Amino acid sequence: MNFSSKLIEEAVNSFASLPGIGKKTALRLVLHFIGQEPEVAEGFASAVTNMRQNIKSCSICHNLSDTPVCNVCADTRRDRRFICVVESIRDVMAIEDTGQYRGLYHVLGGIISPIEGIGPADLNIDSLLKRVGEGEAKEVIMAISPTIEGDTTIFYISKKLKGFDLKISTIARGVSFGGELEYADELTLGRSIVARIPYNLQKG
Amino acid sequence: MNFSSKLIEEAVNSFASLPGIGKKTALRLVLHFIGQEPEVAEGFASAVTNMRQNIKSCSICHNLSDTPVCNVCADTRRDRRFICVVESIRDVMAIEDTGQYRGLYHVLGGIISPIEGIGPADLNIDSLLKRVGEGEAKEVIMAISPTIEGDTTIFYISKKLKGFDLKISTIARGVSFGGELEYADELTLGRSIVARIPYNLQKG
Repeated sequence: MNFSSKLIEEAVNSFASLPGIGKKTALRLVLHFIGQEPEVAEGFASAVTNMRQNIKSCSICHNLSDTPVCNVCADTRRDRRFICVVESIRDVMAIEDTGQYRGLYHVLGGIISPIEGIGPADLNIDSLLKRVGEGEAKEVIMAISPTIEGDTTIFYISKKLKGFDLKISTIARGVSFGGELEYADELTLGRSIVARIPYNLQKG
Repeated sequence: MNFSSKLIEEAVNSFASLPGIGKKTALRLVLHFIGQEPEVAEGFASAVTNMRQNIKSCSICHNLSDTPVCNVCADTRRDRRFICVVESIRDVMAIEDTGQYRGLYHVLGGIISPIEGIGPADLNIDSLLKRVGEGEAKEVIMAISPTIEGDTTIFYISKKLKGFDLKISTIARGVSFGGELEYADELTLGRSIVARIPYNLQKG
């Protein structure tokens, strides 16, 4: 693309560096800001920087949070007997949107994926074992995408949890196989938490 | 969407306020920044604000520019006998990308559209007449989308230009190169038969 302006070129390249945004879309976004008051662009930019500078990882569940301990962990009405293990904060949001779950979460920060070089040590598994070791949790619910990597991760964590006096469950396989959790519809995702099934280590 | 964090909610809403970006895409972009160093978000934000605060409209052709007069108007190698009238800066870029045009531009900033309440007075038409009045231009090329609004705009401007010693032309319209005839719309195909051009065996 032939930009007559360095300023526009830089702004377009900044947008185009974001995932899923190409040069044409980037240009449309930049022109959108040019069509509005400078305050709109400033407000947008400060929301982004403010978020990035101040966002924290919850010291208990690793959910993203404005405070050292996230809203869910700090909420005394939450049922602390349940820990729902998820891959990412997106999954926490998706489950919260269903309104079907009142327990706590544990965000792994990824799933075991040898292809991408992500091993168990890269995930928040030690802190999960520590939480479970404190004895408050009675059930760990694996709400992890039903993919090969997801199943591997569930298998690995449930083996680690074997020594504890716990029920281990996975969300019901109403979620289509190979599907990403965040794209599941609310009803399916909600029901699959309610109808979770005991995890059997032998069957995998 | 259920955000456990106000910071994330604000950043997502900022992205989702942009044209063509929904909440899920906005969240993906926000999480992209969280996955990177804070400097990435700051660099992105400053490119946007810097662009918006410093971008100018060329005092001659209304093209967007870093300087009071844009690169094209300031380029002495450009052929000043031609003024190409376009709707927006996007069209300038598209034509520049072809590498086929070495004249000047005039950006109207829109087209006449009674439905959207855009009249001739809202467009940069007076400044076009002033430029033409200076006598350097010998041809005005209307590179405006072949829609009803576009045709109205061309008609209006060409009437205003009637008194000047000028050639007025529109870009050629017809079936696009490499396009399958059967997929061309009826209007385009019909008009391209009516407005057929002599075939020159030498030129091909």
